[in-house]
Amino acid sequence: MNQKQVFQQIAEFWTNKMPFNQLLGLKITTFDHVQSEIRFVWQEQLIGNPIQNILHGGVTASALDLAGGVVAAANIIDALDDLSETVIQQSLSKLGTIDLRTDFLRPGRGEEFIVTARIIRSGSKVAVARMEMHNEKGEHIAFGTGTYMVG
Amino acid sequence: MNQKQVFQQIAEFWTNKMPFNQLLGLKITTFDHVQSEIRFVWQEQLIGNPIQNILHGGVTASALDLAGGVVAAANIIDALDDLSETVIQQSLSKLGTIDLRTDFLRPGRGEEFIVTARIIRSGSKVAVARMEMHNEKGEHIAFGTGTYMVG
Amino acid sequence: MNQKQVFQQIAEFWTNKMPFNQLLGLKITTFDHVQSEIRFVWQEQLIGNPIQNILHGGVTASALDLAGGVVAAANIIDALDDLSETVIQQSLSKLGTIDLRTDFLRPGRGEEFIVTARIIRSGSKVAVARMEMHNEKGEHIAFGTGTYMVG
Amino acid sequence: MNQKQVFQQIAEFWTNKMPFNQLLGLKITTFDHVQSEIRFVWQEQLIGNPIQNILHGGVTASALDLAGGVVAAANIIDALDDLSETVIQQSLSKLGTIDLRTDFLRPGRGEEFIVTARIIRSGSKVAVARMEMHNEKGEHIAFGTGTYMVG
Repeated sequence: MNQKQVFQQIAEFWTNKMPFNQLLGLKITTFDHVQSEIRFVWQEQLIGNPIQNILHGGVTASALDLAGGVVAAANIIDALDDLSETVIQQSLSKLGTIDLRTDFLRPGRGEEFIVTARIIRSGSKVAVARMEMHNEKGEHIAFGTGTYMVG
Repeated sequence: MNQKQVFQQIAEFWTNKMPFNQLLGLKITTFDHVQSEIRFVWQEQLIGNPIQNILHGGVTASALDLAGGVVAAANIIDALDDLSETVIQQSLSKLGTIDLRTDFLRPGRGEEFIVTARIIRSGSKVAVARMEMHNEKGEHIAFGTGTYMVG
Repeated sequence: MNQKQVFQQIAEFWTNKMPFNQLLGLKITTFDHVQSEIRFVWQEQLIGNPIQNILHGGVTASALDLAGGVVAAANIIDALDDLSETVIQQSLSKLGTIDLRTDFLRPGRGEEFIVTARIIRSGSKVAVARMEMHNEKGEHIAFGTGTYMVG
Repeated sequence: MNQKQVFQQIAEFWTNKMPFNQLLGLKITTFDHVQSEIRFVWQEQLIGNPIQNILHGGVTASALDLAGGVVAAANIIDALDDLSETVIQQSLSKLGTIDLRTDFLRPGRGEEFIVTARIIRSGSKVAVARMEMHNEKGEHIAFGTGTYMVG
């Protein structure tokens, strides 16, 4: 497999085989070792405040964490010479979120939500990504910063 | 209604009428204006990593946010002289998470998870709470800090 | 005074009359209610690690906090109709940092450091700013996010 | 040298040979691999707000960062079998702050400030510490969380 194929496999696996991503409807639409994009659509069950009808803050945090995590995963893959399945699995098993800051800027209202992540620190042990979430009208809903273990 | 009854109503409403809390099975077991406790049990659908079988980081963030939010809500109530429904609803409508930091310390494994929050800043406009999550064996899984708009 | 004159006064006061800003040599070079820029030059006394010869993390945090604080101050001023000295002083007395996250990306090396802040949430009670610090070669040294009380 | 002697050497070096710690008057009073204490006294030059006469937020962040950093350093030392100077220096050269969150709870007023740090994650690559700052009257002034590279 080449790198592009590996990325595609990861996107498919994380979108379709991770129970919580499926529950929330989080879809990895594109990613490489520099940036990523996650999309999900409004669902009643994601409501955190039934009076105001807005997303639960945890939904936003989940989407930001995934967007940052997938770009951190791409950093791990990008550093590998050997793209055999064993090496990839072993390398990705080291991935984990160390900490995540979420800044809630506007109420989580919209029909579709787009989260983008961009790597700002790419090391052999730790990667840091910054994330943004907008709705389909382009309104900024949240920002975030995530620190990930990658090696 | 006295304050204790108001707190009980909030706990019931947030546990049973907030769709995302219900989806995750988050239950408010106790809270006042100083501290709170949230509990939830392991479910397959909360898995964020099917190989390691651990909670999605977003589940942890959701539970921490709720624990901090409910103690912030109790602060709002505690400052009210008039506990009529109109005043309570109007006051609680100002509640919102400004930012949330989650520190993931250990893999999210266990049968039951217990989140506790403690208020560390109690102002008329902004409240800050610190949270901890343990599993039923007492293992520390996560820490967090949340800043909430309360006025 | 018009708004531009008020901003100039604040820049002069914060640069020349705040003891700790003077100690570190932090200079406000430009700011309005959307963004700000702070500059300071390398000094031996700012070293946090004498073996590696790099800035103390607290120096970086100080500069980021000032950059975010000044753009939050401009937000306060921008919301005022009356720019009399009494109103300005009373309004600015509400300004305070609620929390600050600093991400250290690269060792703090360089001859001059440039910090920029950009407002990402502008409310009547709370403002949030994102900051970046580069050296004179354009190397990213740090990122940050600050939450400020403004009303 | 035994571990206790190594800790004493680090405390002396960081207190007396780090220019910025000296400038601020930060003194490491006690530390091991579980917790640490830093103290410093009020000085005019640490003022960040000459009208309110309170500490600059950057002073607080500097003290929290040092308290967390020194307990992270102790974790590095604690994992070593060989306490020769070469091994210690090489191991400590890996130490660095990845990110730091500071929560400012009360105005920084007092005659003396006491910062304590406690390790909450102790890994071979990354350590996380939580910090608190009080004044001599026991008033909580700030909380913080720091993530440190240790390997």
